[in-house]
Amino acid sequence: MIRVLFAARKSAWAEYQTVLPQAIAEAGVAAEVVQEAAPESVDYIVYAPNSTVQDFTPYTRTKAVLSLWAGVEGVVGNTTLAQPLARMVDPGLTEGMVEWCVAHSLRHHLATDRDVMRADQTWAPHVPPLARDRKVTVLGLGELGRAVATALQALNFDVTGWSRTQKTVPHVRCVSGDDGLRTALSGAEIVVLLLPLTGSTENILDAEAFALLAPGAFVINPGRGPLIDDAALLAALDTGQVAHATLDVFREEPLPRDHAFWAHPRVTVTPHIASATRPQSSARVIAENIRRGEAGEPFVHLVDRSAGY
Amino acid sequence: MIRVLFAARKSAWAEYQTVLPQAIAEAGVAAEVVQEAAPESVDYIVYAPNSTVQDFTPYTRTKAVLSLWAGVEGVVGNTTLAQPLARMVDPGLTEGMVEWCVAHSLRHHLATDRDVMRADQTWAPHVPPLARDRKVTVLGLGELGRAVATALQALNFDVTGWSRTQKTVPHVRCVSGDDGLRTALSGAEIVVLLLPLTGSTENILDAEAFALLAPGAFVINPGRGPLIDDAALLAALDTGQVAHATLDVFREEPLPRDHAFWAHPRVTVTPHIASATRPQSSARVIAENIRRGEAGEPFVHLVDRSAGY
Repeated sequence: MIRVLFAARKSAWAEYQTVLPQAIAEAGVAAEVVQEAAPESVDYIVYAPNSTVQDFTPYTRTKAVLSLWAGVEGVVGNTTLAQPLARMVDPGLTEGMVEWCVAHSLRHHLATDRDVMRADQTWAPHVPPLARDRKVTVLGLGELGRAVATALQALNFDVTGWSRTQKTVPHVRCVSGDDGLRTALSGAEIVVLLLPLTGSTENILDAEAFALLAPGAFVINPGRGPLIDDAALLAALDTGQVAHATLDVFREEPLPRDHAFWAHPRVTVTPHIASATRPQSSARVIAENIRRGEAGEPFVHLVDRSAGY
Repeated sequence: MIRVLFAARKSAWAEYQTVLPQAIAEAGVAAEVVQEAAPESVDYIVYAPNSTVQDFTPYTRTKAVLSLWAGVEGVVGNTTLAQPLARMVDPGLTEGMVEWCVAHSLRHHLATDRDVMRADQTWAPHVPPLARDRKVTVLGLGELGRAVATALQALNFDVTGWSRTQKTVPHVRCVSGDDGLRTALSGAEIVVLLLPLTGSTENILDAEAFALLAPGAFVINPGRGPLIDDAALLAALDTGQVAHATLDVFREEPLPRDHAFWAHPRVTVTPHIASATRPQSSARVIAENIRRGEAGEPFVHLVDRSAGY
């Protein structure tokens, strides 16, 4: 019987306390999943950075730290962490992210807000261009970015994808590096941010970047808050260079009540819901890594600690 | 030099006066496109039912009537029409329809209105089910219905398609007939109406049909207004059996300013924009049928006058 420490907030425990033990049992491993344990007795840590566990040093027998979250920037820099760290790659999360990104891309593309929010009885047909005539750029071509770029392409959007290192995605124009970033942003009408947060991606959308977009562009950020220079975005919204921003992530969450984004008529705030992990499918991912650890097989979705993701 | 009569509203002429002659010339046919002509001199009529041409009897040399609209119920019953009638099957129209239907399906699925219209600073995460757990029914599996069902399926929605006669669409559960209709509606969470308007499809969504849906279902109508029994829909909205209806077409268009749909908080009115034909692509479809007529080849997209579409 191995011991799995569930190190996350109590609200997460409510979601996982049934499905996680079940998934581990279904993976053929005998384990107890607990919220508290003597550190030296813990075989695996299921982890969210908002847990009370911040010092990994006493977890001497722990074989792996398994992140509940897709983004690991809250733990990857923890210098006490010597154990292998795995990201969450939840197929449910990817599907949900695709749905959220496609929903908001189509919403901006078709200007559906105009009809949804109309307060009078004006019958004023407006025919948008076809998706094939709409330039969309996805920044980041990891698991999520690739899936989103592919789904947008399937709807005929004219999709460019950018990543730090060159990637290949069928039917998507892929570019990389600094020159590629300028190419990807130049004339883009919709930009979707799905980059990991690292030193080199912070503020990747700054004043210079916004100036490259097509006038009246749309910005969609389901990635990480600090990818955007907030002040530069507000300035670009004020000039109309950016027509609307739909933001799911922020430098501080929940977004402070006095933040300009809340009241801005051309900002849609969503409360970090784009990338919700689904307990059922993510429990299976965690269970699979525990099974691998116990069978002596290599872990999947391991974080490259030097790259930061 | 053949003569093509453009029989539609002046506003349509503005969109087609350049692209239509161009498309016909590119198809290799020498033609003049005019808004008025002696009926006996007209070789083809490009037609919208809101034109002044209502009696086709004097158009004795006219080889075909080529509809500008996808829906032909405004002309198919015209007893003076002895000439072949072709529907508009505009690839641009199909693409635009897919975009509109997917946009509004995702909008209801993810409840994006909640965030788009939020007036306060409440940070209240709500995680919707995945599309794979959302039952969507598409009524009508013609050109448009098939394309929409396929696009929704590609986003993992659990799609059922219904048509009068049995059809096959890859990865879509296809049913037909009266029993099939009950199956298709029972428990459906999102219903998309893409049927032609005929005697047997009028009021297909009536009180009995709404009662079969999942409680809190969404109704999306980009088809034809009379497919829905308006009073039954309003009653179903009032009980909450239907949570929201997004309607693009109406029994009377523009929708009269005093119609209950305008002011209803759970109805979104869009001004017949879902199925906009794009002049550039539809001009090519018309030109192709004129080329066929002149070459003695069979016309495409001919209407079955007895079926009504």
